Amino acid sequence: MALIEVSLLRIRLMLAVLVLGLFVLSAEARVRHYKWEVKYEYKSPDCFKKLVIAINGRTPGPTILAQQNDTIIVELKNSLLTENVAIHWHGIRQIGTPWFDGTEGVTQCPILPGDTFVYRFVVDRPGTYLYHAHYGMQREAGLYGSIRVTLPDGVPEPFPYNYDRSIILNDWYHKSTYEQATGLSSIPFTWVGEPQSLLIQGRGRFNCNTPGIEAGVCNATLPECSPYVLTVIPGKTYRLRISSLTALSALSFEIEGHNMTVVEADGHYVQPFDVKNLFIYSGETYSVLVKTDQDPSRNYWASVKVVSRNSTTPNGLAIFNYYPNHPRKSPPTIPPTGPMWDAVEPRRAQGLAIKARQGFIHPPPPISDRLLVFLNTQNRVNGYVRWSVNNVSFNLPHTPYLIALKENLTHLLDQTPPPDGYDFVNYDIFSVAKNVNATTSDNIYRLQFNTTVDIILQNANTMNPNNSETHPWHLHGHDFWVLGYGKGKFDLYNDPKNYNLVNPIMKNTVAVQPYGWTALRFVANNPGVWAFHCHIESHFAMGMGVVFEEGIEKVGKLPTSIMGCGATKGIPRP
Amino acid sequence: MALIEVSLLRIRLMLAVLVLGLFVLSAEARVRHYKWEVKYEYKSPDCFKKLVIAINGRTPGPTILAQQNDTIIVELKNSLLTENVAIHWHGIRQIGTPWFDGTEGVTQCPILPGDTFVYRFVVDRPGTYLYHAHYGMQREAGLYGSIRVTLPDGVPEPFPYNYDRSIILNDWYHKSTYEQATGLSSIPFTWVGEPQSLLIQGRGRFNCNTPGIEAGVCNATLPECSPYVLTVIPGKTYRLRISSLTALSALSFEIEGHNMTVVEADGHYVQPFDVKNLFIYSGETYSVLVKTDQDPSRNYWASVKVVSRNSTTPNGLAIFNYYPNHPRKSPPTIPPTGPMWDAVEPRRAQGLAIKARQGFIHPPPPISDRLLVFLNTQNRVNGYVRWSVNNVSFNLPHTPYLIALKENLTHLLDQTPPPDGYDFVNYDIFSVAKNVNATTSDNIYRLQFNTTVDIILQNANTMNPNNSETHPWHLHGHDFWVLGYGKGKFDLYNDPKNYNLVNPIMKNTVAVQPYGWTALRFVANNPGVWAFHCHIESHFAMGMGVVFEEGIEKVGKLPTSIMGCGATKGIPRP
Repeated sequence: MALIEVSLLRIRLMLAVLVLGLFVLSAEARVRHYKWEVKYEYKSPDCFKKLVIAINGRTPGPTILAQQNDTIIVELKNSLLTENVAIHWHGIRQIGTPWFDGTEGVTQCPILPGDTFVYRFVVDRPGTYLYHAHYGMQREAGLYGSIRVTLPDGVPEPFPYNYDRSIILNDWYHKSTYEQATGLSSIPFTWVGEPQSLLIQGRGRFNCNTPGIEAGVCNATLPECSPYVLTVIPGKTYRLRISSLTALSALSFEIEGHNMTVVEADGHYVQPFDVKNLFIYSGETYSVLVKTDQDPSRNYWASVKVVSRNSTTPNGLAIFNYYPNHPRKSPPTIPPTGPMWDAVEPRRAQGLAIKARQGFIHPPPPISDRLLVFLNTQNRVNGYVRWSVNNVSFNLPHTPYLIALKENLTHLLDQTPPPDGYDFVNYDIFSVAKNVNATTSDNIYRLQFNTTVDIILQNANTMNPNNSETHPWHLHGHDFWVLGYGKGKFDLYNDPKNYNLVNPIMKNTVAVQPYGWTALRFVANNPGVWAFHCHIESHFAMGMGVVFEEGIEKVGKLPTSIMGCGATKGIPRP
Repeated sequence: MALIEVSLLRIRLMLAVLVLGLFVLSAEARVRHYKWEVKYEYKSPDCFKKLVIAINGRTPGPTILAQQNDTIIVELKNSLLTENVAIHWHGIRQIGTPWFDGTEGVTQCPILPGDTFVYRFVVDRPGTYLYHAHYGMQREAGLYGSIRVTLPDGVPEPFPYNYDRSIILNDWYHKSTYEQATGLSSIPFTWVGEPQSLLIQGRGRFNCNTPGIEAGVCNATLPECSPYVLTVIPGKTYRLRISSLTALSALSFEIEGHNMTVVEADGHYVQPFDVKNLFIYSGETYSVLVKTDQDPSRNYWASVKVVSRNSTTPNGLAIFNYYPNHPRKSPPTIPPTGPMWDAVEPRRAQGLAIKARQGFIHPPPPISDRLLVFLNTQNRVNGYVRWSVNNVSFNLPHTPYLIALKENLTHLLDQTPPPDGYDFVNYDIFSVAKNVNATTSDNIYRLQFNTTVDIILQNANTMNPNNSETHPWHLHGHDFWVLGYGKGKFDLYNDPKNYNLVNPIMKNTVAVQPYGWTALRFVANNPGVWAFHCHIESHFAMGMGVVFEEGIEKVGKLPTSIMGCGATKGIPRP
């Protein structure tokens, strides 16, 4: 993979040399070709040995580095023995290639063991993106990585910096995804509990002296689980691309003694503002600028902490290493303890502070054509615990939506339109619902092409008294404007008056705070079928999502490679 | 499932009552309809809790009870989250339905998560059969059960007995199939070691005081792992249908103080002979008659032991409970220790003793049309440890053989014919091969329809000095005659002179002893594509198998349900 890329680069450089500088370096987009093999391997990212799904032997997988408008080709070989796979390119809108969104059951059939599936798509916007498994709960098994899309040669970023670094944050369970999923789909429901550790760029540290663990599986001396070290040169500005792919946890990230200036969120420039700690939810990406302007004679802690849940997961630590101090030299201080886990206000405040950067504002349409209010609730369906949207728990169809709709196989789907809202007047979002029962369905929201859609994500009490959780929602195929956040029940008449229609940030993932609401707007202008769901792995697996169709008639001929399941088994038509 | 069967029976009985005995009970074949759901569940078959693949919550799965010529319909719902499945009906020849043999990659594409696949086939011969997963190493995860096919009403067995009981023997690993498979396909090769316990009808007993195991996973007080109890009435004759589906182990089974009379092997009547202990290899089934003629005031041990390997796996124990003694009353004696693990001679002697029963002899064709000599060796391919036949290590194609051949997609397969033999003159079966390298291939033996084929399974030294293992080979779609066994290298000129052509037993599974050979004959008269492979789960996964095609042009229209992988993805032709 790296070899091919280097060769392409070399050819390009040779060509550049050949023309002896008569022409400037071509601004033409390149093709970046990756060959990835997905396979189970034993890894000890937090010193505890377990099977992970690795790409080319690594978790996180290789970073995709590209320039705006490059074409990415990933030849993905599934070398799992009995298990399928699919990879989603998180934040990439897949304009013109909705079949390569990698969302199993929505845009493609799963990739079978032994098969090689070729993803091919354009990264049309610069920014910080992610990729990860979008099948079952495989993301939790370690199948994820970074995509960094830079500006074309010669185009400057609107903020100066000296170095560019990517850091993925994650939480980490010792139980396999099978064990977790079995618990979720059992009666009684069995919850895996809090993650055992937090990983910073794939490294964490579990206490191997924890009583009761199997002999020989935990080894604190492995270099693999030594803390991640970010070595910096004093007096410089670092762009840190911080992203989160946690299974469950909302996080706070900080670097001891250093402020961070937020400049990018989900691929969009942010009007800069400073934070001491950055709150980040699963599926979000941020760029922050950090000045290495502190005492250079020592190292500093970088620390990550779970917020929003009273978690038993210990804070994750990395070393912010001022060169030339030894990278393993412990900072002389006690690591930062981070913010209070249950303080919602600072988190809401950060959300409100994120606005589009002056000069880079994409103004939203002033009004919307359709309003969808999505009540997020925890429910029971046939005795199983599920999550629902307006009391419908999401279920994937046998034939992926994109194929069923494009090939006029709509009879394969539940054709009842899902509800556009809930019982606003009578539903008490602050209590356990009187009737927690919900239904499951594979029905779909069909949006008129090019219309503007508003979504209110309304949070509520779970099935436990006095409990409401944080849900980061992620939209495929689009960026949306974040128009507002609020506490309590969304007021259809008054709350829209406070929408930010001037400089709202565009994002692909946004959090809904406990007992709160978040308002979004997007334009349904990307022909295809797109998932919109809670990015917490278990919540989506338990039905917390919906699917949108828009402009299906404008979708091009579907590649046969995405077929093979449901109604698409057979000798293909010539 | 059981309900449906009972209802069918009830309807039938009601009809019988209705006609007031004017007619004898109809000899017409019935349809037996099963609905099975395959799902991961936590079980503790040997007191150690692990995830197993259960059918309707059980491992072993429900027993299929049928009469000769009944049609079995199994609606199999795959409720695994990300993992496919396929079930093989072991010993059922699938005459006219080769697409329902359940051999993933050979006769069908895997069944995807969420899908329901309908197997429909006729059990045309009475006898003791099995079913089990035939995909990856899922059989080891607990996906297996019994098929008992009885004679039509009024047709007596050639031996009298009072009661009929089924007992499946198995070995049991605590590591998941993922963990095992990851080790097998790693460099360096990592072997999981010997199984932790032996199961008798799904029950075993691991010592929970073993040091180093994770806290809370082992519980010796669970009723689930109390010993299997076979309650018998004194003075009766029991038919015990003993079968083995071990992952690895060759076994010896005995009931303290009771001889066993062998009367059936793999669905064929055996000229009765008595044994104190029964040797049984993975994939074999036997019926033995046991007389409950011992002191009825006590219970007896039934015991199973690993032979052929110097195993660390402790013997498995069950209680042969003479009614009305308490079923949990321990026998007053020390359990039998079983035969020496390394005594090959008694095992060879049992093989030679098994002959077709007088009056039920199917004489083999006196000569064969084609001779295949299959050298079984352990090899390396690209640094990976593999097993091979004539230095070709078996690899499944992307499009299952049956589909590729029937639909004229032969270009998808390696078309080089695999070798009919090996270098008989120079190959030293008693030493580590000088060149252990092999190739992998998905090529196939194409047999002329209705011809008679002889196969010599030739064992050899593994890659370790002075080591040769036992391999039970299983043929799909056929029964074969066992013509002979021998020690050392098969002599093409002299050994055939000693073949038993008079009353050889027919079987579907037979063992090849260390440094020995076994000679088989079968008639290629079942249109389809059929696997022939070592029944040790890891050996087949590592390439120890071949595939036969015969009469592909006589195979009927393939059902679309078996497609969806390789070249069979797409909107099907109308």
